[in-house]
Amino acid sequence: MVKPPIRERLTAAALELFDERGYEQTTVDDIAARAGVGRTTFFRAFGAKDDAVFPHHEQVLLAVRDRLEAATPETAPVAVVEAARLVLRHYLTEGDVARTRYRLTSSVPALRHREIASMQQYQRLFRGYVARWQGDRPDAGLRAELLANLVVTAHNHVLRRWLRGLVADDAAEAEFDAAMALVTGMFASAEPAAGGSIVVFRTDRDLGTVLPTLRALLGEPSAEPPRTA
Amino acid sequence: MVKPPIRERLTAAALELFDERGYEQTTVDDIAARAGVGRTTFFRAFGAKDDAVFPHHEQVLLAVRDRLEAATPETAPVAVVEAARLVLRHYLTEGDVARTRYRLTSSVPALRHREIASMQQYQRLFRGYVARWQGDRPDAGLRAELLANLVVTAHNHVLRRWLRGLVADDAAEAEFDAAMALVTGMFASAEPAAGGSIVVFRTDRDLGTVLPTLRALLGEPSAEPPRTA
Repeated sequence: MVKPPIRERLTAAALELFDERGYEQTTVDDIAARAGVGRTTFFRAFGAKDDAVFPHHEQVLLAVRDRLEAATPETAPVAVVEAARLVLRHYLTEGDVARTRYRLTSSVPALRHREIASMQQYQRLFRGYVARWQGDRPDAGLRAELLANLVVTAHNHVLRRWLRGLVADDAAEAEFDAAMALVTGMFASAEPAAGGSIVVFRTDRDLGTVLPTLRALLGEPSAEPPRTA
Repeated sequence: MVKPPIRERLTAAALELFDERGYEQTTVDDIAARAGVGRTTFFRAFGAKDDAVFPHHEQVLLAVRDRLEAATPETAPVAVVEAARLVLRHYLTEGDVARTRYRLTSSVPALRHREIASMQQYQRLFRGYVARWQGDRPDAGLRAELLANLVVTAHNHVLRRWLRGLVADDAAEAEFDAAMALVTGMFASAEPAAGGSIVVFRTDRDLGTVLPTLRALLGEPSAEPPRTA
């Protein structure tokens, strides 16, 4: 195992060179030389040139899997948000490395395809767990696909705004929270009704008046109160 | 303008040949010859070899745009479902042509990229209209991206099941309706509350008992009844 500092140096060297000379014009030997190591060291750290651009992909993917693995159907909404937050925080910690990679993936097709494939891995991971939590409903597959898509889309939306400099570093997580609140609201409305029914309505009435009567009507004086959005 | 029958014959010839010889091994001349026309006729109908695989893409895209263009924020949920239904019905009408194309796009990277690009065009179209309907909310962009994604994902889910033979021809639209009911429920829960509030709750009570009281409570005896999912 090559220790993290070498990987980080190789990634920094690769991004510098791709920026200076272009992705196609840079060889693995160039990257190794810039990082002050040999070709063999490069290949102990990364399988190929483009791997140096995504040095922590597997590690973050595993962290996401572990977070989802720890959840149950009851804790699913929290788990999904926290798992997506792990990914966002990783990018925020990378800082300029992430922004440089974003510029590269926008201009180099090989890296863009790689980026799309990475996003699909996240999406499959979320979909797999959400499907498991749906139980054996006939439409579990559809629900899982929709819900996984929502989480990944909301995450990517905020991430992209941060990468483009439209959201400041210290405001990105608040924007993520707002996006995820929207998503979990949509999650809840799509939740399996477990033998009951889900009712959605809009009202201009004062909720302080409506909700007590509604709770009494449902015979649920305090447990699982209606949520409002 | 080449009349539809020629385009249809060229598409049928192209799909036959791609199936028999492979996509790369088939030339435009081969396709024209199989359809009993000349190379010039092919190029009056299609810009390139791969266009013959998606003969009605622009036409369906325009039909979707027209349907969305006719909508208002109030009629948006219906418009979105009907626009997506236009796409599904087009595939159902194509029948075996659609299924052969699906096999081809699964195995030929050039056609798969083309297919992904087509789907992205639909997604952008839906997103553009949904964004317009959201007005000037600060999170209009996010909402539009999420909602457009939901519609396209649900449509593709049902379409893929039909293409794979997992849903019969005469059951596909009912499955589409069920998928869209799920999506519009999620839409509603994410809809701007327009000064009012959206309430979502789950109940095991009999809806026949709950809904009349709820309607009376909301002062809406018949108009805009609570929806259930």
